[in-house]
Amino acid sequence: MSDRPASDPVPAGRVLTGGVIPPLCTPLTEDRELDVASLERLCGHLLEAGVSGLFVNGSTGELAYHTDAFRLAALRVVRGVAGGSVPVLAGAVDMTTNRVIAQARAAREAGADAVVATVPFYTPTHPDEMADHFRAVHAAVDLPLWAYDIPVNVQRKLPAAVTARLAADGVLAGLKDSSGDLDELRTVLRLTEASGARAHGFTVLTGSETMADTALALGADGVVPGLGNVDPHGYVALYEAARRGALQDAAVQQDRLRRLFALTRVGDPARIGAYSSALGAFKEALRQRGLLTTAHTPAPLRPLTGPERAEVSRLLAQAGLGPV
Amino acid sequence: MSDRPASDPVPAGRVLTGGVIPPLCTPLTEDRELDVASLERLCGHLLEAGVSGLFVNGSTGELAYHTDAFRLAALRVVRGVAGGSVPVLAGAVDMTTNRVIAQARAAREAGADAVVATVPFYTPTHPDEMADHFRAVHAAVDLPLWAYDIPVNVQRKLPAAVTARLAADGVLAGLKDSSGDLDELRTVLRLTEASGARAHGFTVLTGSETMADTALALGADGVVPGLGNVDPHGYVALYEAARRGALQDAAVQQDRLRRLFALTRVGDPARIGAYSSALGAFKEALRQRGLLTTAHTPAPLRPLTGPERAEVSRLLAQAGLGPV
Amino acid sequence: MSDRPASDPVPAGRVLTGGVIPPLCTPLTEDRELDVASLERLCGHLLEAGVSGLFVNGSTGELAYHTDAFRLAALRVVRGVAGGSVPVLAGAVDMTTNRVIAQARAAREAGADAVVATVPFYTPTHPDEMADHFRAVHAAVDLPLWAYDIPVNVQRKLPAAVTARLAADGVLAGLKDSSGDLDELRTVLRLTEASGARAHGFTVLTGSETMADTALALGADGVVPGLGNVDPHGYVALYEAARRGALQDAAVQQDRLRRLFALTRVGDPARIGAYSSALGAFKEALRQRGLLTTAHTPAPLRPLTGPERAEVSRLLAQAGLGPV
Amino acid sequence: MSDRPASDPVPAGRVLTGGVIPPLCTPLTEDRELDVASLERLCGHLLEAGVSGLFVNGSTGELAYHTDAFRLAALRVVRGVAGGSVPVLAGAVDMTTNRVIAQARAAREAGADAVVATVPFYTPTHPDEMADHFRAVHAAVDLPLWAYDIPVNVQRKLPAAVTARLAADGVLAGLKDSSGDLDELRTVLRLTEASGARAHGFTVLTGSETMADTALALGADGVVPGLGNVDPHGYVALYEAARRGALQDAAVQQDRLRRLFALTRVGDPARIGAYSSALGAFKEALRQRGLLTTAHTPAPLRPLTGPERAEVSRLLAQAGLGPV
Repeated sequence: MSDRPASDPVPAGRVLTGGVIPPLCTPLTEDRELDVASLERLCGHLLEAGVSGLFVNGSTGELAYHTDAFRLAALRVVRGVAGGSVPVLAGAVDMTTNRVIAQARAAREAGADAVVATVPFYTPTHPDEMADHFRAVHAAVDLPLWAYDIPVNVQRKLPAAVTARLAADGVLAGLKDSSGDLDELRTVLRLTEASGARAHGFTVLTGSETMADTALALGADGVVPGLGNVDPHGYVALYEAARRGALQDAAVQQDRLRRLFALTRVGDPARIGAYSSALGAFKEALRQRGLLTTAHTPAPLRPLTGPERAEVSRLLAQAGLGPV
Repeated sequence: MSDRPASDPVPAGRVLTGGVIPPLCTPLTEDRELDVASLERLCGHLLEAGVSGLFVNGSTGELAYHTDAFRLAALRVVRGVAGGSVPVLAGAVDMTTNRVIAQARAAREAGADAVVATVPFYTPTHPDEMADHFRAVHAAVDLPLWAYDIPVNVQRKLPAAVTARLAADGVLAGLKDSSGDLDELRTVLRLTEASGARAHGFTVLTGSETMADTALALGADGVVPGLGNVDPHGYVALYEAARRGALQDAAVQQDRLRRLFALTRVGDPARIGAYSSALGAFKEALRQRGLLTTAHTPAPLRPLTGPERAEVSRLLAQAGLGPV
Repeated sequence: MSDRPASDPVPAGRVLTGGVIPPLCTPLTEDRELDVASLERLCGHLLEAGVSGLFVNGSTGELAYHTDAFRLAALRVVRGVAGGSVPVLAGAVDMTTNRVIAQARAAREAGADAVVATVPFYTPTHPDEMADHFRAVHAAVDLPLWAYDIPVNVQRKLPAAVTARLAADGVLAGLKDSSGDLDELRTVLRLTEASGARAHGFTVLTGSETMADTALALGADGVVPGLGNVDPHGYVALYEAARRGALQDAAVQQDRLRRLFALTRVGDPARIGAYSSALGAFKEALRQRGLLTTAHTPAPLRPLTGPERAEVSRLLAQAGLGPV
Repeated sequence: MSDRPASDPVPAGRVLTGGVIPPLCTPLTEDRELDVASLERLCGHLLEAGVSGLFVNGSTGELAYHTDAFRLAALRVVRGVAGGSVPVLAGAVDMTTNRVIAQARAAREAGADAVVATVPFYTPTHPDEMADHFRAVHAAVDLPLWAYDIPVNVQRKLPAAVTARLAADGVLAGLKDSSGDLDELRTVLRLTEASGARAHGFTVLTGSETMADTALALGADGVVPGLGNVDPHGYVALYEAARRGALQDAAVQQDRLRRLFALTRVGDPARIGAYSSALGAFKEALRQRGLLTTAHTPAPLRPLTGPERAEVSRLLAQAGLGPV
């Protein structure tokens, strides 16, 4: 790793060790430009609710839909609002190693405290090549590197054994597990406990909106819920209950949030894509709560209909969520 | 489509109407930089063999592995060698609409005669959204637009009905079908014949190395074979036989090329990825034929072993292919 | 193979060497019992049209839905109508080896001339185990054994290399390829030509309704089309054109049959299952043509609606198919 | 449901309400016949360990590999050993409704206390047809009916909404969830609590060997672990800890059993099938513990090698499991 730039350590106050870290929705103006005011309002609302970090340019943030320039603009806005109060993680998601390195370097320039990268996609990749991929990104970019395990989007699971080896070698600072596979998550936790990587700071976050309490009970350190944009207070309450061992309280909160998660199914997937339905409903809920000016999503995603927006209203009311 | 730039039509001599259009391998130097001399040598060899166009930044060209700057550098080299003698198609492959538009605009600046784009990936997309995606790219970029149907990489099939509608509406100039689904290919051909789109120039190419003669017999106009880097004369002979109706001659040539296609299986996929095996073997074959200086592939792809390289030699000899 | 029963060779006139072999629909009475009269009428119609064999208890025959006793009753009826004039192939489809052997022995008792078996399903199976499976069935049952490659139903592809080895060893009499993978079909044909198995009688049939002409052009010996229940004359004409090398005539017939194949899509798969739609439409078409008394399908398949039945009428009329 | 036979209620002592219910391995003699003595020994060992029921002819019991007669013979042996002390659940697994009814009636005759059936397989099935399927089996067979959700084998998930509706309607007595999807399991639990079905006896079992403690913490009533053949005392201890709310004790036991579960990976799946590896290792472990006379598996499964058997020994020793 001799080609790694001289170290410029992230200040300890901006190192993520757990908690609730919402993957930010990315608000758009009427012209589908970045809506800076709404993004600042959303970040402020989340910080007020007690989140432990902000994750920009994740899948919920429509990373796949925005240009490099747009991604960096969003990161700079978030960096400005966070102001060092909490760490800012930035997605550095692209197809393979060289492109991820380019994304990660740009994110570092724009002020990210850590970068989050998936395994290669578009192209099939051997597990040993997955390991090489993360090693190369780590060597090239002087920021904490998180693995983003999201097979539904990249088609391949990052095997627990690969994660554990990279954790033991200090390549990965943590894992954001959006695989939905709690069994493998448990394996990662046990392997990294056994190797000492956990004791040295390797951090495990779940991306599950609906099984966050279970992941925390298994030992995860935090949660990165897309639905946390809509109800950050709910996830902070869930997290704090789990941390103090009040698993039943956490489960009650989780079950309430599971019902709210029906937001992602208000649109008919046979009419619009599943993503249009889910991302559009999060944004519509944020619009109705007064945090976003529009619920627009980028091309080629399709908008919700009137009845679908009414169903969003009903679900918000059922969850006790009104205008902020 | 009022936002489309004023037209700057592609000269007729650079409009692709069929033939053999190899998706170019992208040679690397010892330092994994673009090997300009080898790329020029490869292009010259293909042109001498009688190919009808050059396709740069396709999957065989390792599009997933190279940065934007690298992609454009490769395109400029190819543009220079082609010199207007044959059309140059450039991959404008990225996750969704806005990113594809950015790729396509850059490719236009760098001299592409046409751009080739897939359906969105990383994210699930409804068929109607796929149509919107191509319509938006077409409206934004003043170049012929080809659909690149490659579900093995992007996980979703471009439905024949969507292709046919876009062809009838003049959105697509053609289809590069790398789906392997000859039944759907036939449906595209019949629907675009019925609509008149074929008569107006909608062109259909197969990406199959191994069933090219069958695709041509069904009515396809040309073939985009990765293996055509290694044996362009073979594919040109196959194409010309098919065009003159000598299907048996085409089949004999195809069966010879099918045996040579064992190149893609010289590496053990349990040891290295399937892509490492296939891309590495094409490059090793080109190196042995004297066209490339190295057989290097980009990170994180792994190299072939000595015995695997010897198997490449054996397959080349069996196919009657020596140094150029 | 010492445990194989003493040989009782199938008379040469009942050995299948190609042609059109419809996989029979299985008519039901109002009470969902076997409708013997309709089955006899259907078989008679097919024989009159010039088919070369009858395949009973295939997927189109609803093999998955009928009990062992029902399957054997259907086989006996078909055997009676065929009367030795053409070979009768019987599906011996069950989960794994011992169960397939039981099915095959019962089919032999009931008069089958050959049995057709898939690779194991319900359970994952290694390719070497697939080979062992067919070897064990062959050793236990004194009838020609056909492999039925239908991954859409059994989830696993019978690899071309396994088929070819079993053909060379005399284990398989033939292959019914319902995989839709023409590339692999070509590999089977070339490998079994090279080994001499084809010269010794190994026979290859395609199960494709829509690419039968292409399969025959590649070298297949015959076709097993579910749609051949509805229009046997069309498939016989297609087959005969292909056999005499009139590929263009075969293609015209094929394209007509491709349009008729829209039968399988008259039902909305979001309302009823895809199988309900396809099997129900074949039976409804046969009912409208006067060959079946009811269009009933077995539990839990759901019936077509009135508008869907009207669409069946329209497609029959478009194809020029009236009452028999 | 007027066609349902007059009721013959299962005695209350033989109604399953939870606990540990191992899916029995099915021992074979040297000649691959049912090894009655070993099966009786195994059942006795499990009963002595405190299991709450016995599940015969499940996937671990090699249901896919045995004939109907063999399945019933195994059921009768188990019925005899159980002697009414615990309920005996029998798999009634076949492709679709009519065949499942035949299996279930035979199992009832042979003394089963309840039957367990999957959704249809071999053939695609709409969710509404899945519901009809279970309703028809329930109407035809006078025994408690359990749904067996095992998409890895039958390719389709039984949707939580379908399960819940059937539970509310009294069609299903319970669910054996072998889907590995804890999120959906939680949905089933919450929906059946809300409908009152849980209060009326609807019982939920997990088939997971590795996340049983989590499933119990979420509210499941019991566990059906294949590994429970090898270490029933471990699963009974886990279950009892979970029942008394000692989740940490349950987790420690679960983590020990997770390490033992490496049994299922002793064989190289590239050499033998995954099932050969898993089923063979369970049987080899039982042989080494003195419960089975042979570790034979039925055709076409392949045996473990010597080194693989040695790894079984090592894992047993590590888990503290010696001869019984």
